[in-house]
Amino acid sequence: MSLLHTLEVDLGERAYPIQIGTGLLGDADLIGPHLHGASALVVSNSTVAPLYLDALEQSLVARDIRHDRVILDDGEAHKTLAAVETIVDALLERRHDRRTTVIALGGGVIGDIAGFAASVYQRGVNYIQLPTTLLSQVDSSVGGKTGVNHPRGKNMIGAFYQPQCVIADIATLDTLPDRELSAGLAEVIKYGLIRDADFFAWLETHIAGLVARDPALLAEAVLVSCRTKARVVEFDERESGLRAILNLGHTFGHAIETLMGYGNWLHGEAVAAGMVMAIDLSIREGLIDEAVRERSVALLEQAGLPTAPPAAIGVDQYLDVMAVDKKAIDGAIRLVLLRALGDAFVSTDYDPANLHQTLTTN
Amino acid sequence: MSLLHTLEVDLGERAYPIQIGTGLLGDADLIGPHLHGASALVVSNSTVAPLYLDALEQSLVARDIRHDRVILDDGEAHKTLAAVETIVDALLERRHDRRTTVIALGGGVIGDIAGFAASVYQRGVNYIQLPTTLLSQVDSSVGGKTGVNHPRGKNMIGAFYQPQCVIADIATLDTLPDRELSAGLAEVIKYGLIRDADFFAWLETHIAGLVARDPALLAEAVLVSCRTKARVVEFDERESGLRAILNLGHTFGHAIETLMGYGNWLHGEAVAAGMVMAIDLSIREGLIDEAVRERSVALLEQAGLPTAPPAAIGVDQYLDVMAVDKKAIDGAIRLVLLRALGDAFVSTDYDPANLHQTLTTN
Repeated sequence: MSLLHTLEVDLGERAYPIQIGTGLLGDADLIGPHLHGASALVVSNSTVAPLYLDALEQSLVARDIRHDRVILDDGEAHKTLAAVETIVDALLERRHDRRTTVIALGGGVIGDIAGFAASVYQRGVNYIQLPTTLLSQVDSSVGGKTGVNHPRGKNMIGAFYQPQCVIADIATLDTLPDRELSAGLAEVIKYGLIRDADFFAWLETHIAGLVARDPALLAEAVLVSCRTKARVVEFDERESGLRAILNLGHTFGHAIETLMGYGNWLHGEAVAAGMVMAIDLSIREGLIDEAVRERSVALLEQAGLPTAPPAAIGVDQYLDVMAVDKKAIDGAIRLVLLRALGDAFVSTDYDPANLHQTLTTN
Repeated sequence: MSLLHTLEVDLGERAYPIQIGTGLLGDADLIGPHLHGASALVVSNSTVAPLYLDALEQSLVARDIRHDRVILDDGEAHKTLAAVETIVDALLERRHDRRTTVIALGGGVIGDIAGFAASVYQRGVNYIQLPTTLLSQVDSSVGGKTGVNHPRGKNMIGAFYQPQCVIADIATLDTLPDRELSAGLAEVIKYGLIRDADFFAWLETHIAGLVARDPALLAEAVLVSCRTKARVVEFDERESGLRAILNLGHTFGHAIETLMGYGNWLHGEAVAAGMVMAIDLSIREGLIDEAVRERSVALLEQAGLPTAPPAAIGVDQYLDVMAVDKKAIDGAIRLVLLRALGDAFVSTDYDPANLHQTLTTN
């Protein structure tokens, strides 16, 4: 066991630490101080539970915490209100009081469901996140977005709710499929693009080691990604302004995911292609030059990611889906653009003809 | 139309006004400034909508707000997660974006459901409360408690969520059944008992006028009740301490409601009997004298309320239900007691034999 980094997310009375290292799941001293009641409920899925639930439950036993578990089916298709009801049912059936803790052990889907369930159970109980994918370690660990999907749209039902703590155990990435590791790297690269040119250069240097799952490099990448996201979220917790830059590539990406059918493109893969589209539009707007595209495409390719959307999607399809995206305000499509590598901003003030070109060409 | 009082609930960035008067529902200038987007969804029930929906919708039309409606069946039995889903479905079907406003037109049940739906739709949209019962005007208007019931317990799923504004139209109380008016007066009397001996004395003077629905007296009672609750909630928004005194009589009351079957006793009726039980226990603990009981029983009786629980309930039944009440912490039953008329506090430090006596005698 080795704790490598601790990062404090500073949200006033909702502040919490992110602890990053290897072999942390079995460390009772790490999770212990964040368990306030006598009980806990672990939420996991059928893929992750067989690998890591034992280690976690041993640390709960060591702290004398009565614990129950809900094991959901794996996959975005199960991120529904019905899953939240299953968790609430279990909490009530086992008489968990308002001092209980809900512990999410899994990727972003588990974190989103369990966090939302924790936010609504008795109007809010403690919540601890143990993300076991690179995507969830760098993305869902910070920001407090929880929620579930509705047949008419992703993440349409949810809450902003902060955990007591996040423990990112890099060792859990050893069992992650290659494609999911790459999908996580898409979000890591995003932090370089939107806020941190130095980090982008660091990624260019170390991308081979990251793909080879060097634990120290991965821990560093998780730390910098979480720190960047934390600084943005601290500034704008409820997403009224700056926070929207975290969505670089996401409006395009969501459209790709929707139009290709959920599950055919991983979220990170769609975001990778979407980021190249955002860069393309930024170039057409005269904001940045070709070099940004070349470096971005090269890095994404080395990370094992797509750099263009599927050819099958037409302009009208894109526009139709993008217009109902949650990020639309009274009809206008807000997009994140770059004014330099490491400097993103939100705009509705772009030439629609350029957007049309981007959607046609890519 | 006549606006009589405005009270600011001071919760920092979540501050909002409560506007109290007669004939306010049709006043477009009152609701207008709190509608931020281009659309709104009115949530009401089949009893209230025929009486007041027209006036409200006229004021929305006057402000050029596109509006939809969800009319739920009347009653606590419909305060379920399914009702929340109905509202979310309607919002998505009509493509309401995150700048929409959910407007609750009805009593506490409608406010609790609509507020919770507003809190989870796209992780939170604007919410306006138009309470049409005395209970909801003095109780649900302040505090931000929203939520729905679960077969295993009341209000087990919900959120703390503040409205943009509350408009309490006293004229809507004209159509309230006598029994519901009395149930609302139980909560009004509670504010006197827990924090304000002068207000209690004012109620003793004016109880006949209140029962006769004098609008100026009712508006004054709503103002003082909301102000008292606001001061308590401002001090302790998330119910970690002081706020619990608002539950005077409620732990006993919930037990009565549960054991008698929901709907047989109104919430306010059960609270009235529960407050007398809390006073009884406070007397047994040597905290207050008989005079408090005599005045309270007299006032509650004049308000048309019960002052003793049903004889059919046994001590073991009470204890079993009270132990799983949401207000239990790691097993101990927290109760609100009086150390004087107008001075309540929360205690687990009472003699169990006295509690036993209270449950036996009453």
